[in-house]
Amino acid sequence: MTQRYAVHMVVALPPDMDPAQRDDLLAREKAYSQGWQRSGHWPHIWRCVGEYANLSIFEVDGNDQLHEILWGLPLFPYMTVTVTPLAAHPSDIAYVPADAG
Amino acid sequence: MTQRYAVHMVVALPPDMDPAQRDDLLAREKAYSQGWQRSGHWPHIWRCVGEYANLSIFEVDGNDQLHEILWGLPLFPYMTVTVTPLAAHPSDIAYVPADAG
Amino acid sequence: MTQRYAVHMVVALPPDMDPAQRDDLLAREKAYSQGWQRSGHWPHIWRCVGEYANLSIFEVDGNDQLHEILWGLPLFPYMTVTVTPLAAHPSDIAYVPADAG
Amino acid sequence: MTQRYAVHMVVALPPDMDPAQRDDLLAREKAYSQGWQRSGHWPHIWRCVGEYANLSIFEVDGNDQLHEILWGLPLFPYMTVTVTPLAAHPSDIAYVPADAG
Amino acid sequence: MTQRYAVHMVVALPPDMDPAQRDDLLAREKAYSQGWQRSGHWPHIWRCVGEYANLSIFEVDGNDQLHEILWGLPLFPYMTVTVTPLAAHPSDIAYVPADAG
Amino acid sequence: MTQRYAVHMVVALPPDMDPAQRDDLLAREKAYSQGWQRSGHWPHIWRCVGEYANLSIFEVDGNDQLHEILWGLPLFPYMTVTVTPLAAHPSDIAYVPADAG
Amino acid sequence: MTQRYAVHMVVALPPDMDPAQRDDLLAREKAYSQGWQRSGHWPHIWRCVGEYANLSIFEVDGNDQLHEILWGLPLFPYMTVTVTPLAAHPSDIAYVPADAG
Amino acid sequence: MTQRYAVHMVVALPPDMDPAQRDDLLAREKAYSQGWQRSGHWPHIWRCVGEYANLSIFEVDGNDQLHEILWGLPLFPYMTVTVTPLAAHPSDIAYVPADAG
Amino acid sequence: MTQRYAVHMVVALPPDMDPAQRDDLLAREKAYSQGWQRSGHWPHIWRCVGEYANLSIFEVDGNDQLHEILWGLPLFPYMTVTVTPLAAHPSDIAYVPADAG
Amino acid sequence: MTQRYAVHMVVALPPDMDPAQRDDLLAREKAYSQGWQRSGHWPHIWRCVGEYANLSIFEVDGNDQLHEILWGLPLFPYMTVTVTPLAAHPSDIAYVPADAG
Repeated sequence: MTQRYAVHMVVALPPDMDPAQRDDLLAREKAYSQGWQRSGHWPHIWRCVGEYANLSIFEVDGNDQLHEILWGLPLFPYMTVTVTPLAAHPSDIAYVPADAG
Repeated sequence: MTQRYAVHMVVALPPDMDPAQRDDLLAREKAYSQGWQRSGHWPHIWRCVGEYANLSIFEVDGNDQLHEILWGLPLFPYMTVTVTPLAAHPSDIAYVPADAG
Repeated sequence: MTQRYAVHMVVALPPDMDPAQRDDLLAREKAYSQGWQRSGHWPHIWRCVGEYANLSIFEVDGNDQLHEILWGLPLFPYMTVTVTPLAAHPSDIAYVPADAG
Repeated sequence: MTQRYAVHMVVALPPDMDPAQRDDLLAREKAYSQGWQRSGHWPHIWRCVGEYANLSIFEVDGNDQLHEILWGLPLFPYMTVTVTPLAAHPSDIAYVPADAG
Repeated sequence: MTQRYAVHMVVALPPDMDPAQRDDLLAREKAYSQGWQRSGHWPHIWRCVGEYANLSIFEVDGNDQLHEILWGLPLFPYMTVTVTPLAAHPSDIAYVPADAG
Repeated sequence: MTQRYAVHMVVALPPDMDPAQRDDLLAREKAYSQGWQRSGHWPHIWRCVGEYANLSIFEVDGNDQLHEILWGLPLFPYMTVTVTPLAAHPSDIAYVPADAG
Repeated sequence: MTQRYAVHMVVALPPDMDPAQRDDLLAREKAYSQGWQRSGHWPHIWRCVGEYANLSIFEVDGNDQLHEILWGLPLFPYMTVTVTPLAAHPSDIAYVPADAG
Repeated sequence: MTQRYAVHMVVALPPDMDPAQRDDLLAREKAYSQGWQRSGHWPHIWRCVGEYANLSIFEVDGNDQLHEILWGLPLFPYMTVTVTPLAAHPSDIAYVPADAG
Repeated sequence: MTQRYAVHMVVALPPDMDPAQRDDLLAREKAYSQGWQRSGHWPHIWRCVGEYANLSIFEVDGNDQLHEILWGLPLFPYMTVTVTPLAAHPSDIAYVPADAG
Repeated sequence: MTQRYAVHMVVALPPDMDPAQRDDLLAREKAYSQGWQRSGHWPHIWRCVGEYANLSIFEVDGNDQLHEILWGLPLFPYMTVTVTPLAAHPSDIAYVPADAG
């Protein structure tokens, strides 16, 4: 069964980081993120307005896979990450009770 | 242009609320929420695991419409609501730069 | 695959609750908790010293099952619950890499 | 429709920043800010007394434009920014209900 | 000299307040607020989206007058109020240095 | 009319600051502070026990003058400053109602 | 030796308190406060603008006397009180080193 | 081996509690506390100045005994309790290294 | 008697740490942790998903031994550690009352 | 009269501090602390388990002396210090009312 999570990532790069190192880091981050987006495991990524931060939705096998994806982010050492596990909401118009699924 | 927001709603009902009043309130909340879901303005609603809370995504005309929808929630007087305005993320595989849109 | 979570539950009962109602509530809570403990899904429950709170470990199918168990707690309306999803730790002497599992 | 936001920006420059770099940065920040003020999109900027911080009001097309303006601030890498979306207030003497506007 | 302040007011009415008492209270609040708006001392009042709260700007003689206005709000006993004193910002296109004013 | 404010200043100097630079900075801070104390605008300065911090009372023309004094502190780049505007208290034995003043 | 403290008191009266009880309580609070002000132990009391709160300065024999005065406040059961012990500040123009006092 | 803990207890009694119930509760609390003080397990209890709170030191067999003592406090349902486990400090003039004890 | 504690450790390594120093540090940390795991004093270590952090359970002689183990962690200077003492929970299906043990 | 205070000190040394400088600093800290312990003014110092922190009790002439002792700590520039003034507790079995002392 697929597990869904909301993940909030805040990035704090040192302002004096070497520009070439920074460009390389951001290029790798983008490629890594887009690879997981294409796999279907990272269906949403939104920018939080006015912040170097994003809110993302992940759909993965479970806790271990989610941790591996996040741990592998090239920007991970510069991030503060908050994970919120999500469940189906009974008021969702697409809701199907688990025992009837 | 449609504006997107993440909205976190935490519900705190008094434990000794009259059961009939509570049932009525929850039925009205569900109907109200599902009406806005069907309109397309409330595309996602997820339960935060272990909490009487949800994380929702809204796509509306802007700040005023979002406030009207939230203010009208039957559970609004019992909620703590946090709104995060969202923008397109440049690493999103569906991203189209605004000036090229 | 089984998912593991740490769950912190803080209880706040009104000090003037009717004693019979309280006794009934606590008896139902204990029976409910022990039922899930016996099922193997709630392998640990510890009291946080000096607090009306516990730290528990759950091993369940995933986010939806965990939410259903917690939502069904007779004390849920009086609780503040915090969920931390857990993954295997690479320094754990019992650790087996996922791709070799 | 124009969207209004309150934005709180707190600046933290390293005390040992090179003075010439600092002067250049602040000159570019001022020019950038005044450009957006003259465009009408940044109608208010106030200093928070005793802090290297400002409270500003923005009137823009929406979330994406606001993010682009803030992201482009020369001081952005040194700022902590908080965005509060605003709606018309029904007690405002200038208030006109949306459906009658 | 006129002093400027940002004031954030969060309202928490008991959900079970008598509707007539509530209507009366809100009518008096609106009249009181609009009286001060017409006097020019309360030039801006905005709704914070998704909250029973407003962000307001006051222009008054000073601390004592601001306190009297806020203390007199019919909703004051139900409010949490935060006051931020504001000064002119040197990047404001309307800025005139004080000693040259 | 004079405005009164409580100001809390917390100082964080880098422990490895050059001793001569530090001595110079502190000497300038002391001279600057004592100049404003002698002017009557900074009537109280107290050390918060166990902290590199002070609680001060300022009596100035208003928000702009207070900000200029604080902004000019030689230690300002190393400080976290919190400003609380104060009004006369009706229980003060020296209290004179404003409208009878 | 006299000890000096800053004390911040925030009052939260239930909005539905009986008006006669409230008037009596506030009259006793005022008389109690003014008695200690006249004794010289409570030299300053200021209103925090926009809040049902005050910032006060006490000069007393020490911790025990301060606690007795605060504990005896008629409003004490409705207050959140924060105490900051103060020492002489070496930049104070009235400062006399302790060992030379 | 005896275990030492610092325990911070904050009491919040409803201001409208029946005076006889309150007197009874406080008398039982005092007797209970003094019983444990006399046993040697509660060697220090100090009042935090200006607060309905105490800081206490406990010397007990371990976590379970400490929890039982605190849980049994007549005021426990009205308290917020924080427990800090303590160890010997190597700079203590009475310090004896554990392996040499 | 064995004492049980939950320990939450958050690691913050400088992103620009020398890779060889980092590898050495992490190898020593792993060996140290696994030594204590094999001793039976560190029965559980779990990764907190999305964080450079773990939640661990310790079973030790008491506060002093726990402190010595944690203080000796090679990563200790880079960690923020939170300790929660645990007691047996009366709803635990394995619970045996202390006085009957 | 002697005044009593609880003082919580958290130490944050840079992990890359020169070992000789660090050893010297810690040796001076220990000597300084033990000097005040022997004077009777620093009767208790305990390690907070799992933290580079201590909880101490001071018995001194008053606020000024306490500040001088703390300010003089060799580790002071690396510490976050919190001071809680303490008074006698009426439930203390050693309590003697002040007016009967």
